[in-house]
Amino acid sequence: MALITELSLRSMLSAGIPNPFPIEAGDKITPAAIDFLKGRGIQVKPSQPNEAANDQPSSIPVGVSNRHVHLSQEHVEALFGKGHTLTPLRNLSQPGQFATAEVLTLHGPKGMIQHVRVLGPARGESQVEISRTDGFVLGIHPPVRLSGSIEGTPGITLIGPKGFVTLGRGVIIAKCHVHMSVEEAKQYGVTHGDSLVLRTAGERPIIFPDVSVRVSPQFALDFHIDLDEANAANLKTGDTVLIAGKNGVLHRGEAG
Amino acid sequence: MALITELSLRSMLSAGIPNPFPIEAGDKITPAAIDFLKGRGIQVKPSQPNEAANDQPSSIPVGVSNRHVHLSQEHVEALFGKGHTLTPLRNLSQPGQFATAEVLTLHGPKGMIQHVRVLGPARGESQVEISRTDGFVLGIHPPVRLSGSIEGTPGITLIGPKGFVTLGRGVIIAKCHVHMSVEEAKQYGVTHGDSLVLRTAGERPIIFPDVSVRVSPQFALDFHIDLDEANAANLKTGDTVLIAGKNGVLHRGEAG
Repeated sequence: MALITELSLRSMLSAGIPNPFPIEAGDKITPAAIDFLKGRGIQVKPSQPNEAANDQPSSIPVGVSNRHVHLSQEHVEALFGKGHTLTPLRNLSQPGQFATAEVLTLHGPKGMIQHVRVLGPARGESQVEISRTDGFVLGIHPPVRLSGSIEGTPGITLIGPKGFVTLGRGVIIAKCHVHMSVEEAKQYGVTHGDSLVLRTAGERPIIFPDVSVRVSPQFALDFHIDLDEANAANLKTGDTVLIAGKNGVLHRGEAG
Repeated sequence: MALITELSLRSMLSAGIPNPFPIEAGDKITPAAIDFLKGRGIQVKPSQPNEAANDQPSSIPVGVSNRHVHLSQEHVEALFGKGHTLTPLRNLSQPGQFATAEVLTLHGPKGMIQHVRVLGPARGESQVEISRTDGFVLGIHPPVRLSGSIEGTPGITLIGPKGFVTLGRGVIIAKCHVHMSVEEAKQYGVTHGDSLVLRTAGERPIIFPDVSVRVSPQFALDFHIDLDEANAANLKTGDTVLIAGKNGVLHRGEAG
């Protein structure tokens, strides 16, 4: 039950007013608000009972990823010395994942980037995640992929203190995605492989219409974006974004 | 009049399917497509005659702006020498605007950026447009503003071959906006000060829900974004974006 006024509608303009505009049973709407909607060609639509608001949480915390490298144990030793193992520095938001003390240099056909953090633990295959901005510095233009999907991606040269490794593939721009535990997925009413529509507020609003949902008992709730996406949307780690829809379908009450 | 199939609906998923889904008089929808919509809780809604498609153009070309500087004539002379005037190098998309042969260095509290292009002609007051990414390099975190709106913005030091200038204000992150001539504004059905909802397609879809429209006889059609926005959306100059709504209201057939 809500009182819908012209003022409350105006405050929705920057985030978007849906057309038709949904009205719940019990909602009151002022004559000025009706004029406001009519003047913009927006129809008023009484909501169906099955569309009623539920108890699902409506926001997700943001985690911004800077460029980083995942290494196989073989490559750890090639870059940092025979028998070397990664040195945990601090835990990341995802359980079991950590930033390491190790950094290395990315070397591409056009340029290089120093002091790139290695994340642990070691993986089966090495993978390098950069932003599109980094790609222009390096002269490498990888596709947008989910982690682990490196078929047909470009390679790069990694330089460490004890040696170098030339990868034949493994450079990606990370596709933005949400991590969730199995329990959180139930709360949010989503399953692994779903896609969410997420939106930001603030002075630089952006909508991400196709955010992959990845569910695992090992995951914790986090919306992962890279630095380009963070800077374009004025987001930083710890901010939250709002859920505006699922699988390409907007929730009622949401618009562009 | 269209044939709506499950396949055609699936192809809309990444850009978004509106709920309710509008059906035109004469549209045919297959039983599988109806099941597809029902399974996602999407209602089918016959469109009203006044919602019928019109002849307005539906896309806008993109112009990506790298960091740049506008200078007053006084500052041109302070940086490049007494009596110096800007040297046109090439025309920009906006009539009368040009890139110049002059470049300078931006110097902030944390770092500097060299080879920053000066745009001409000279203006009444100097203004520096950087990306948020540049701001982290410089240690300057300006607000998101439309060009010319520099009240309360931070300053910066400019270094040229013949001297330097310390601005007390004038550094902004440009708010994304569309330039249009008066004639184009009529074609698009918008006026100066309107806000458009623009969306990209491709492997990294993004929606810009609040893009300012600026209309002037001196303007040419262009959606201006900075490098962060371009990189987050995989856009480059010459690409096009689609119009998904106006003043926070989605067009029919559009969703997140």
